[in-house]
Amino acid sequence: MSLTASPLRLATTDAGFDAALTARLQWSADTDAGIEQAVAAILADVRKRGDAAVVEYTNRFDMKAGSMAELQLRRGELKTAFEGLPASQREALEMAAARVRSYHEAQKKASGESWSYRDADGTLLGQKVTPLDRVGIYVPGGKAAYPSSVLMNAVPAQVAGVGEIIMVVPTPRGEKNPLVLAAAHVAGVTRAFTIGGAQAIAALAYGTETVPRVDKITGPGNAYVAAAKRRVFGQVGIDMIAGPSEILVLADGSTPADWVAMDLFSQAEHDELAQSILLCPDAGYIAQVQAAIDRLLPEMPRAEIIAKSLNDRGALIHTRSMEEACEISNRIAPEHLEVASADPHRWEPLLRHAGAIFLGAYTSESLGDYCAGPNHVLPTSTTARFSSPLGVYDFQKRSSLIEVSEAGAQVLGKVAAELAYGEGLQAHARAAEMRLKG
Amino acid sequence: MSLTASPLRLATTDAGFDAALTARLQWSADTDAGIEQAVAAILADVRKRGDAAVVEYTNRFDMKAGSMAELQLRRGELKTAFEGLPASQREALEMAAARVRSYHEAQKKASGESWSYRDADGTLLGQKVTPLDRVGIYVPGGKAAYPSSVLMNAVPAQVAGVGEIIMVVPTPRGEKNPLVLAAAHVAGVTRAFTIGGAQAIAALAYGTETVPRVDKITGPGNAYVAAAKRRVFGQVGIDMIAGPSEILVLADGSTPADWVAMDLFSQAEHDELAQSILLCPDAGYIAQVQAAIDRLLPEMPRAEIIAKSLNDRGALIHTRSMEEACEISNRIAPEHLEVASADPHRWEPLLRHAGAIFLGAYTSESLGDYCAGPNHVLPTSTTARFSSPLGVYDFQKRSSLIEVSEAGAQVLGKVAAELAYGEGLQAHARAAEMRLKG
Repeated sequence: MSLTASPLRLATTDAGFDAALTARLQWSADTDAGIEQAVAAILADVRKRGDAAVVEYTNRFDMKAGSMAELQLRRGELKTAFEGLPASQREALEMAAARVRSYHEAQKKASGESWSYRDADGTLLGQKVTPLDRVGIYVPGGKAAYPSSVLMNAVPAQVAGVGEIIMVVPTPRGEKNPLVLAAAHVAGVTRAFTIGGAQAIAALAYGTETVPRVDKITGPGNAYVAAAKRRVFGQVGIDMIAGPSEILVLADGSTPADWVAMDLFSQAEHDELAQSILLCPDAGYIAQVQAAIDRLLPEMPRAEIIAKSLNDRGALIHTRSMEEACEISNRIAPEHLEVASADPHRWEPLLRHAGAIFLGAYTSESLGDYCAGPNHVLPTSTTARFSSPLGVYDFQKRSSLIEVSEAGAQVLGKVAAELAYGEGLQAHARAAEMRLKG
Repeated sequence: MSLTASPLRLATTDAGFDAALTARLQWSADTDAGIEQAVAAILADVRKRGDAAVVEYTNRFDMKAGSMAELQLRRGELKTAFEGLPASQREALEMAAARVRSYHEAQKKASGESWSYRDADGTLLGQKVTPLDRVGIYVPGGKAAYPSSVLMNAVPAQVAGVGEIIMVVPTPRGEKNPLVLAAAHVAGVTRAFTIGGAQAIAALAYGTETVPRVDKITGPGNAYVAAAKRRVFGQVGIDMIAGPSEILVLADGSTPADWVAMDLFSQAEHDELAQSILLCPDAGYIAQVQAAIDRLLPEMPRAEIIAKSLNDRGALIHTRSMEEACEISNRIAPEHLEVASADPHRWEPLLRHAGAIFLGAYTSESLGDYCAGPNHVLPTSTTARFSSPLGVYDFQKRSSLIEVSEAGAQVLGKVAAELAYGEGLQAHARAAEMRLKG
């Protein structure tokens, strides 16, 4: 078998570059009517029949189970799984968790604390920040069972101070992934159920006799899980709906071409729909990266997925300059953005939209995926234009605090009444006026 | 006409209290299949045909218009509207805007600035906070045209540093609300279009020849607008989908009963579906509030709406204690929560879920609606369990920053490789290992 990977070659000076780039970026999140219908039925059924429905769907899709009791993991099981791992894996999990925890603690301190101030007249204004009571974390089973995702979802919830973290993870054919269970132990998961699909989302959103209702559900899943999350949104909070993973490398030619080729592979190996793009003003370097791709691909166990992803969705783009590369990067708003430059801090201020920015040759995207500390759950499909990495703030909410002093009410009452009458809301106006002194 | 308003009387000691409260809180956001279908068709049409489709739907639903040019407000028009207002309204708008701005500036400083730190080995970790490029603000026309909502949506966007703020406001029969235009002037709206409904949401989400595509859409609207926002979510960001407005008053009996009655009215007058609830451990005080309701209702211009809201959805609940009242409040997770107590700071720490908390007798909810400073766009329908007031953070997004030093890569690379091999992602592992020194 001779596999080749030839990402689309583009240059910004090409006639039709814009259209070619747009076509390459195209990805449709269009929903499937069949999936929508199936999911709606499962949600309604679990809402109505609780545990019994969850057990039935689990039997149909995942594994034989007689009752919900069989689908609940005992707390001890998580610990046992952790203790059964080789020491190197235990240590790696613990170190990754510690670094993720310390980053998210810094995040909480920087942006997640309550604050208030008083006006000269004694009026207090502020905002109180509180953790969610209970959250649900969806962990995919089967081929995309990633223990690192358990850490990335559960640790920020724990740092936020969430009272209970409920994990659901399907176990097709009853096979439990010991690394996933061990990660749940390290990350402080409170309870875990071996259920998945739309039925697991329904159980978390509505609650059943056994599964407690949560306030928010995070974590990635297949099309059924995504459709179910969209439908329960409002009833509970949800995180983003993720599209295929993406990496964009902005290279000035100073990073070894092999390293960049492997970074492009590391996104492409996730999924045939994943997207890896290189932007570089140096045509010679682009040729070096293509040569590295040709040389390294045959070594890769997941070469077929990598080749398909690079051939169908990858691109090596020759730009006029690094400045132009930064502009194109802002248009793409990538999930992962590597600045493979000898002077990354020169370019970073020009980069407005990205889930995570990896600066300098040593910062491979894979270090960020596992253990640098920041979250690896990031906005995809250009949503970095308006959304953010999963963080402590996703497991907190804010309440405004207002305490108007008697003196403050005299000033504010007149303004409020004027505007309320202007809007035709007389009770609003009267409520303000009643607080005015004769 | 003799209107009466008798909110449901409950006591926590009643048998069946829980079920009665649940029934009273019940509100269904169920979508209407007819609306869904109409909205899907409008979105697809505007996406395909742009301006022409927007003009056609505007002609059909709102007003006669020959072209998009007629549906764009000139910047001068906003200023002219402002200058044409009576001085008292101009001053009230300016003072409200100034206070809202200063609160949101404090919010930005407290939780919306970039941060970073370095590990001992020189590795940098942090988060960069940037404003959205361009946002759209939906302002309802007709009876619910609230200039205060223009301030509450546009000012935090402006404080966040958003480049362009695009306002859409339908003008049924071509009638423009001068207070709405004036508020847009004061709040720094960049461009405004007199379009509404699903066609306005589509124009903002996809862009047309005339209307620029935005990154996020905020602001309340009718069922068509809400359905359209849900559908474009992902393509653009959206704020929450709001349900009917709610107030919960926690009273220890120390606030004049008239004031509390008027505060209940000020929520009820919004909408027959609005919900006003009083929780109080003092039965005598509850009777005083009911008497005040009876006395004050006939004075109210919107008495019919108030009466229907209080009769159908209101409740006066006798609790065993203030502590129990706080627990019930947490269950309800109200949009507006008044702590009408002589000692509000005693109860505030017990209150976990609420959009905004109004402390003490002088803090009428209406002061918060207009000019205290905090935002009046708040989570409804128990979503305060997991979501927050509209704020500067809704107009910002975060990007993780990671710069691993050469020394850092030696430690992190081994951990990442261990975990990546455990997940079967060999390119991830190799990318980390390539950065290790022989």
